[in-house]
Amino acid sequence: MLVRRTDLADEAHALWKESAGETSALSGVRAREGRREGFPVTRVDILDQRGAEALGKPEGHYITLGLEGLMEREDGAFPRAVRALAGELSGLLASLPPLAPVLVAGLGNRSITPDAVGPKVAGLTLATRHLIHSAPEHFAAYRPVSSLAPGVLGSTGIESAELLSALSGAVRPACVIAVDALAARSLRRVCRTVQLSDTGIVPGSGVGNHRKALNQETLGVPVVAVGVPTVVDAATLCADVLEEAGQAALSPQALPDAGRPVIVTPREIDQDVEDLSKAVAFGINLALHPQLSLEDLEVLLS
Amino acid sequence: MLVRRTDLADEAHALWKESAGETSALSGVRAREGRREGFPVTRVDILDQRGAEALGKPEGHYITLGLEGLMEREDGAFPRAVRALAGELSGLLASLPPLAPVLVAGLGNRSITPDAVGPKVAGLTLATRHLIHSAPEHFAAYRPVSSLAPGVLGSTGIESAELLSALSGAVRPACVIAVDALAARSLRRVCRTVQLSDTGIVPGSGVGNHRKALNQETLGVPVVAVGVPTVVDAATLCADVLEEAGQAALSPQALPDAGRPVIVTPREIDQDVEDLSKAVAFGINLALHPQLSLEDLEVLLS
Amino acid sequence: MLVRRTDLADEAHALWKESAGETSALSGVRAREGRREGFPVTRVDILDQRGAEALGKPEGHYITLGLEGLMEREDGAFPRAVRALAGELSGLLASLPPLAPVLVAGLGNRSITPDAVGPKVAGLTLATRHLIHSAPEHFAAYRPVSSLAPGVLGSTGIESAELLSALSGAVRPACVIAVDALAARSLRRVCRTVQLSDTGIVPGSGVGNHRKALNQETLGVPVVAVGVPTVVDAATLCADVLEEAGQAALSPQALPDAGRPVIVTPREIDQDVEDLSKAVAFGINLALHPQLSLEDLEVLLS
Amino acid sequence: MLVRRTDLADEAHALWKESAGETSALSGVRAREGRREGFPVTRVDILDQRGAEALGKPEGHYITLGLEGLMEREDGAFPRAVRALAGELSGLLASLPPLAPVLVAGLGNRSITPDAVGPKVAGLTLATRHLIHSAPEHFAAYRPVSSLAPGVLGSTGIESAELLSALSGAVRPACVIAVDALAARSLRRVCRTVQLSDTGIVPGSGVGNHRKALNQETLGVPVVAVGVPTVVDAATLCADVLEEAGQAALSPQALPDAGRPVIVTPREIDQDVEDLSKAVAFGINLALHPQLSLEDLEVLLS
Repeated sequence: MLVRRTDLADEAHALWKESAGETSALSGVRAREGRREGFPVTRVDILDQRGAEALGKPEGHYITLGLEGLMEREDGAFPRAVRALAGELSGLLASLPPLAPVLVAGLGNRSITPDAVGPKVAGLTLATRHLIHSAPEHFAAYRPVSSLAPGVLGSTGIESAELLSALSGAVRPACVIAVDALAARSLRRVCRTVQLSDTGIVPGSGVGNHRKALNQETLGVPVVAVGVPTVVDAATLCADVLEEAGQAALSPQALPDAGRPVIVTPREIDQDVEDLSKAVAFGINLALHPQLSLEDLEVLLS
Repeated sequence: MLVRRTDLADEAHALWKESAGETSALSGVRAREGRREGFPVTRVDILDQRGAEALGKPEGHYITLGLEGLMEREDGAFPRAVRALAGELSGLLASLPPLAPVLVAGLGNRSITPDAVGPKVAGLTLATRHLIHSAPEHFAAYRPVSSLAPGVLGSTGIESAELLSALSGAVRPACVIAVDALAARSLRRVCRTVQLSDTGIVPGSGVGNHRKALNQETLGVPVVAVGVPTVVDAATLCADVLEEAGQAALSPQALPDAGRPVIVTPREIDQDVEDLSKAVAFGINLALHPQLSLEDLEVLLS
Repeated sequence: MLVRRTDLADEAHALWKESAGETSALSGVRAREGRREGFPVTRVDILDQRGAEALGKPEGHYITLGLEGLMEREDGAFPRAVRALAGELSGLLASLPPLAPVLVAGLGNRSITPDAVGPKVAGLTLATRHLIHSAPEHFAAYRPVSSLAPGVLGSTGIESAELLSALSGAVRPACVIAVDALAARSLRRVCRTVQLSDTGIVPGSGVGNHRKALNQETLGVPVVAVGVPTVVDAATLCADVLEEAGQAALSPQALPDAGRPVIVTPREIDQDVEDLSKAVAFGINLALHPQLSLEDLEVLLS
Repeated sequence: MLVRRTDLADEAHALWKESAGETSALSGVRAREGRREGFPVTRVDILDQRGAEALGKPEGHYITLGLEGLMEREDGAFPRAVRALAGELSGLLASLPPLAPVLVAGLGNRSITPDAVGPKVAGLTLATRHLIHSAPEHFAAYRPVSSLAPGVLGSTGIESAELLSALSGAVRPACVIAVDALAARSLRRVCRTVQLSDTGIVPGSGVGNHRKALNQETLGVPVVAVGVPTVVDAATLCADVLEEAGQAALSPQALPDAGRPVIVTPREIDQDVEDLSKAVAFGINLALHPQLSLEDLEVLLS
């Protein structure tokens, strides 16, 4: 059977429904749709082991925010997108005390455009941890936030999980927010969606496959994952096309062999990655420092 | 019928043979295969109007150099690739007097990675035109070469053809070498091939679709085109997959709708574009200044 | 005598006053100070040949806008700076009919950070020339604007003046706005000032010394110059220091010999160049398309 | 008294000699000059506490390699420079067992050009640590090398020393090589020199002032420092100029006040930083993996 790669829980859920029939309900999974700040929001809760196996993802809460309006440059979309991201993220961080320290980890390879979302977000995170002591007159009431782009195994020789685990031992955050590029199944989701979840990151498809698990088990603290789909796997796209065309006997031989990894990505990927990284970073900053306005953030981060 | 986009003459020729049957010969087209410096070379000559119509390309000579060995980092592949490119290019420039001035035009958008080959090549072209007069003691025996990346219509408001035509009137080159990113049909060709031709560039598919004709007619001098396929159109890929799967009744509805242009590209596109741009630029430099060694070029251009 | 390099008319005027004594008035030169949108503005008008010789600059109007408040990130400074730039620029363009076409030329070398202001501004200019015909339903009421970063002679083999002259012949603008990086005399001016003038650009110091005259004489249309000082020449700085220290017998031997060109620049030059380029580009866009808001520009240009 | 900033031991030594008189010998310091691969080498050994106090640097060995020939693009200079760097570095690493693991730390801010040497070198370091286990058939005989660019405190909220100390606990290198940009006193040294030492890095001037001590005491393993001077502090330059001009009563008031940090740097700093980073990275790679040729490294790292 052909494997379809998706990192998005709501796509996995839709895939399951396709195969099981539209009217079926999946035990162990709860899915709802809503809107926030004018953007569509899908919530998929994986409640037990049965749900986890059916969708191929760990138990937890998955929120998908549709940012098509932002990326199509609707009027006033940027502040709304930032508030929507901050709002949903705040929900996932609800059990965190107000000034508990947080570490933002920007995963991925800054030299591969569709994998650079994580490092770009880390670079736009407002770090305050060092200011609490050095400038308490201004920053005593701020949450201590630190950030790091740990790079990728092929360049550093160090697993992100290994580095972040060592760093967490030193910095002692109460929570890690891990930002990463994802692979979607549908072209419509690519660079138009952000997924938030409280499950951390488990070895998956992603863009660069650079991932050991980053979760409470490996880092010792809760890990909130923020994922941005920037590619569709070319083989997944082809399998979907074949199936949709009523091609019953799918065969991997039908898939084009490029002789190396190929991806499907928007033509405007460079600009899309810039835009999404800024929206995600500002959403994180606003969730962690709710006393700041977007104008403050523009000034502090430029 | 589904349209398959390819800018490569040898792919167009192969497509024609597929549809006509392997044993047919296409009147008005001559195709040969060979090797140069260890790399495979395909030559497709479109000899008359019938051939031009069959392949959808103007009459002229098309040379495709397969650079898989370079991109797979075979030992000593870079100097061989540069010599092969310079050798084939010199063939197309054979009628040019030794010190006749040349203008290198790097087409495309430097902010879109797979479209940035042209601007990158322009940036690595050894410009000598200004040195002939300012430093004749060193450069009197050099060919006057100038280069420009004209940008893209959407950013500048100026057609490349319009700008290059005005510039040719001022600089008066005996020949223009126009470098551009292309769309291939096959994933195996993407970032593994360079096409040279003496036909100039005609409105086509390309990555950015930023093209009015650049040829003897519009610029007033011969135009040699150097094209580097960096993407496959996603719809083309899907059509090919469907056909290969024996799906007789191809229907455009089967193709995924991304709601905006999507491309298929190697995951390592950023690095691939760097590597190919350097090989192409050095090949051009060597063809235009045969007295220089690769070591000279490394020193002069860094 | 030691030569002090400055491209700023108001610094040249201050220098003259220093040497002549504070109470002197320079015949042929009128200087006034004021404020616009909260920023200090200096106007130096060189009225005749005597004034031109005294200040070493052609006759015309020079406006210096002090943007320290912007660069120190005062509240709300960006929109004020853009409006101030647009307002002063509109004054210099007052004789231009409302929809007369304009060409924006971004001079300098994009690979040398303090020389990259021009190319960056060109990249942030809203080009509309091609849209008037292709999308008249939206753009019929817009001024046709085109833009180009012509590169530098050492890279292209083509003088900017030569390229822009040829291009002006084709595009037929009613006015050229030429943006360039400058050398200031005072560290306080560097990356804190913008100079506007209606004299075009004449061979001067600049960062890259890449300049032939760009003015009505060479381009055939009026040239408004927008200059951003990003460096102080190291020898100028040393000469000033020596003089201020009461060192009467200035001798060039006292100046440090680096064996190659060295510049004095803010440590944050990369960020400063980003910020100033955006402010200048938005100011130009607003002056040329007064119907647009800053929000419109943010959306149209990202 | 005016403070002259230099991070180079041989400049500190020259400064001491200037003040003490050319014929004096400084007890506790041994200085010699030589050549390696055609480049001048200065060795300053600080032998005891008296020497350390006189030069303001910790006890240890300091080697300064003059790379003017490389930067002036002498024939064949790159391989010679790499071998010279590798040779001197190997001397400092002589006590390290052949396959003992090493961590390369690239300090500094990648967004500030003259501070980006460290991150660039880290990016060009051949990481092998992960390959020893994953591909033992090819890499069993390689030294395990990892690398990291820890970023700067202002961006990450984490001291480099804190991060590297935590990482060293996890990765357990036998030695850390710390690469950083430095401040020189003389313009002639800037971007023309590399300093190697076995003392680690102690809080100093540098470009970005981002430094807590990185040495055996803080990291628990020996730290070899590789420093590249990329700037001269503007105040230092002015003080030197004044003194050389015979200005006896130096006064800080004579120094120009920029209102923010300004630096003196070569005009070609972007290219210089590229070139030096590559030479340093290749020198480190060759010292750590002596079985590789420069050609191997070009292929493995591109």
